[in-house]
Amino acid sequence: MNTVASQDSGSLIADARELGHLADVQIGPWEYRRFTRRFHAIPEGTAVFGDTFIWGYPRIARILRLANGIPAQFEQPFWVEEKIDGYNVRIFRHGDVVLALTRRGFVCPFTTDRLPDLLPVRIFDEHPEWVLCAEVAGPENPYNEGSPPFIAEDVKLFVFDIMQRGQPGFLPWRDKQGWLQHYGLPAAPQYGRFAIDEAPALAQLIRKLDGERREGIVCKEDSARDHRIKYVTGGSNINDIEASAASIRQLPPEFFMQRILRLGLFLEEHGLEPTATMKEALGDALLAGTLNAIRQYRECHKVTRRYRCRFRERAHAEWLIEFLERALGKGQVLVRRLEWEGTHYRLEFDKVLPKPTGLFSHVLGGGPVFD
Amino acid sequence: MNTVASQDSGSLIADARELGHLADVQIGPWEYRRFTRRFHAIPEGTAVFGDTFIWGYPRIARILRLANGIPAQFEQPFWVEEKIDGYNVRIFRHGDVVLALTRRGFVCPFTTDRLPDLLPVRIFDEHPEWVLCAEVAGPENPYNEGSPPFIAEDVKLFVFDIMQRGQPGFLPWRDKQGWLQHYGLPAAPQYGRFAIDEAPALAQLIRKLDGERREGIVCKEDSARDHRIKYVTGGSNINDIEASAASIRQLPPEFFMQRILRLGLFLEEHGLEPTATMKEALGDALLAGTLNAIRQYRECHKVTRRYRCRFRERAHAEWLIEFLERALGKGQVLVRRLEWEGTHYRLEFDKVLPKPTGLFSHVLGGGPVFD
Repeated sequence: MNTVASQDSGSLIADARELGHLADVQIGPWEYRRFTRRFHAIPEGTAVFGDTFIWGYPRIARILRLANGIPAQFEQPFWVEEKIDGYNVRIFRHGDVVLALTRRGFVCPFTTDRLPDLLPVRIFDEHPEWVLCAEVAGPENPYNEGSPPFIAEDVKLFVFDIMQRGQPGFLPWRDKQGWLQHYGLPAAPQYGRFAIDEAPALAQLIRKLDGERREGIVCKEDSARDHRIKYVTGGSNINDIEASAASIRQLPPEFFMQRILRLGLFLEEHGLEPTATMKEALGDALLAGTLNAIRQYRECHKVTRRYRCRFRERAHAEWLIEFLERALGKGQVLVRRLEWEGTHYRLEFDKVLPKPTGLFSHVLGGGPVFD
Repeated sequence: MNTVASQDSGSLIADARELGHLADVQIGPWEYRRFTRRFHAIPEGTAVFGDTFIWGYPRIARILRLANGIPAQFEQPFWVEEKIDGYNVRIFRHGDVVLALTRRGFVCPFTTDRLPDLLPVRIFDEHPEWVLCAEVAGPENPYNEGSPPFIAEDVKLFVFDIMQRGQPGFLPWRDKQGWLQHYGLPAAPQYGRFAIDEAPALAQLIRKLDGERREGIVCKEDSARDHRIKYVTGGSNINDIEASAASIRQLPPEFFMQRILRLGLFLEEHGLEPTATMKEALGDALLAGTLNAIRQYRECHKVTRRYRCRFRERAHAEWLIEFLERALGKGQVLVRRLEWEGTHYRLEFDKVLPKPTGLFSHVLGGGPVFD
């Protein structure tokens, strides 16, 4: 099974390490290695446990024009699945435990802790070779500022692919769907199979999803090459801007301008005029985000963002905090609460946003800027 | 007079040229050299005609917080002048002609052509050593997308400093004002002398300018060091965004996000709430700019921006076009009209915006993007 790990993985790993593309990771009790960037055919985020490779989840290109993008990208009919606004994980069994890796290849102590609440982990007894690829979404998560409106609390999990340990690529779509149904796994909603000339029907679907404030779709070609693209709704861009406005000077300016571009392209393609409500929501998100950050700095000399999540085990919450402290820098993660409540431990913490904190410290103090 | 040009200018020029910081320039009949970036004490935009230095106009820092910025920046009372939303020129006599240089040190064929309409150029007979520093503003200019609302057509000129050939630095403020009045030169509006503890009065002034849709102020310390800072009104940021929205994918994303930050800081400092009208105007500028660019690309496979200006002499219009073609690239400047009308030649031309043109070509054709 471990294709890469078999013959030349030793020299590959030695090369990657020498070039600084392979880093040692320690999170909680887990020690392994992680590809910090693409190296030959190995994607960023590939994790190596002993000599077992868990391949990184490949990047999926986005199209910004549905009617032209579909025929430009696909040669065969394709399956359409809902794109969920969360964070990507790969779930697999390591020894006796089931772990969840983030996109970049870090074991996520939060997701790992919650797996028994999110899916029937016993499937790994029957399929120890599986790597389930899924989105975790919901308002109570340690990474994302936005979440789908149809998840009122905590998080949910949506499986959309099955990989195998030591192998790149996915199980064929029909096999994957068969297994998801067989085990009753929580899956990303399916919208069926479309021919390339069915762009109008697809446009109708995406407008329906837009009306329901859903994020968009991922299209997977029904062919051996399994080509994929993603396309998002107009509304998802406003959702993103609203959710991220609190981090307005932390995120790169391109984050916001890119979403304004996507929204404009969506409106134009689907023959929609921007409404006064939409314009005001856009202007409001940008201005309110700035004003809130300024007021927060003036009150507590920091710009921070509050996160909440639930844990089954206290140690996992502590390992998450340790991991975030190492990733973001000491003093940048402020635990506000960690206590048992009803069914879970409740963790609340703030992340300090260093860029707006530094910026407002300078300019509110009357410092000069050159631009 | 030519301080720098006297003893060691030869070796300085040789060094700068060797490092690629000094470039030969030819615009129309004018041949000279230009510092393409700062070199020792010589600012970018410094021009060298023969052995005469016309020093570059120094950069002026901006403060984003009036109440703290004034005491942080100034040690002495300061003069307050209006900041005009145009482009910076330096005007001086070269042989028998009077020339205008842009900030970056290019002879501007448009401004040079129009000088007799804009100021009494005979002053250079009495003061051949002068370099007048001024803003040119108005809707009919070849560079800026925005212009002050109080200039209905064509352009006007506003002198705000006097330099001397071969010398950095400015004439003292009182001398400068004396000369401007003596010759009746068109000048940037003056708002008087403020003490450092007069921030409330200054705040009142800036809110008045904001109400009149003016851009802001430049403060010049009444001292030998002549320290300067600038501060703009909240409304000027919305004006900038509206005027530049047509170039929304041409300008860096930071252009827009920086102005949203400045607007937020202005509102917060002056105790103003963002109104529904302001939010809608902001959202509208960003969305309308994107939509117009998309529609323009779909109509003519280019995103362009129309400019209009008036000339006294046809040759100057042709030299401007030649200069812009060289600066922007062949085929990026499309002359739409050049003909005599009433009192002047009327030039109309389009600049092609290469970034949105390339972007929309790719994405409207269905091309994939990774982000």
